[in-house]
Amino acid sequence: MATESTAGIAAGHPEEALPYDVFGRACPSRCVLKNVTHAWGSLTLAALYDGTFRFNELRRRVEGVSEKMLSQTLHALERDGLVHRDAQLTNPPRVDYRLTDLGREVAGRLIELISLVEERMPEVEEAQRRYDEGRA
Amino acid sequence: MATESTAGIAAGHPEEALPYDVFGRACPSRCVLKNVTHAWGSLTLAALYDGTFRFNELRRRVEGVSEKMLSQTLHALERDGLVHRDAQLTNPPRVDYRLTDLGREVAGRLIELISLVEERMPEVEEAQRRYDEGRA
Repeated sequence: MATESTAGIAAGHPEEALPYDVFGRACPSRCVLKNVTHAWGSLTLAALYDGTFRFNELRRRVEGVSEKMLSQTLHALERDGLVHRDAQLTNPPRVDYRLTDLGREVAGRLIELISLVEERMPEVEEAQRRYDEGRA
Repeated sequence: MATESTAGIAAGHPEEALPYDVFGRACPSRCVLKNVTHAWGSLTLAALYDGTFRFNELRRRVEGVSEKMLSQTLHALERDGLVHRDAQLTNPPRVDYRLTDLGREVAGRLIELISLVEERMPEVEEAQRRYDEGRA
């Protein structure tokens, strides 16, 4: 992000040194941000922060996600190098999912964001009430 | 997030004290997280971290967003109490958008996430190459 206020946030790297800019329409980093902040992507990364999960364990943890959506989400995160898929040739075959080192860093920042949102929900709900009353 | 590893991350609050859980299908915090991590929502919040913007300034900053999508995004963020809309009765009327205090906290954590993604894109793109080669 080539903005003054965010310069240096990236682990002390001056923004000028970053060739990627999520604000750019065609920047590949925007697709990765989409995979990460995608509703199911965020919850899947945050869930995996706790360790290794099998597909159905993840599905139970991320309430409401469909089998198809969780499968697509895991493939996208695996392709971005954030999730490691470990298929064991047992009978029945067993597939475990866990975060890569990079995925763990990303999930850690997501959890800080999620925790803030959860913590401040009373403020948010009060704002929603005021907004809706103003529209009524 | 009622998980061991994330307990206490929310500014020292033990998770047990948080009635909200984004993993819960019906938890209102999940909708707020969606508004925040929504592709356009994230970029809009991050853009506003730099100050006050008029609608068309924001549209230019967040490349590729349509007028309709930016308008919907700003309304959702305003309703959640993250963005303040300041309409001045000048002629022509002028509308400025800026972050609320809470919005600034949320945007700050988003920017840390975005900066990490931008910074680590070379790793991500290498992972994508390996993944795509494995499928070829």
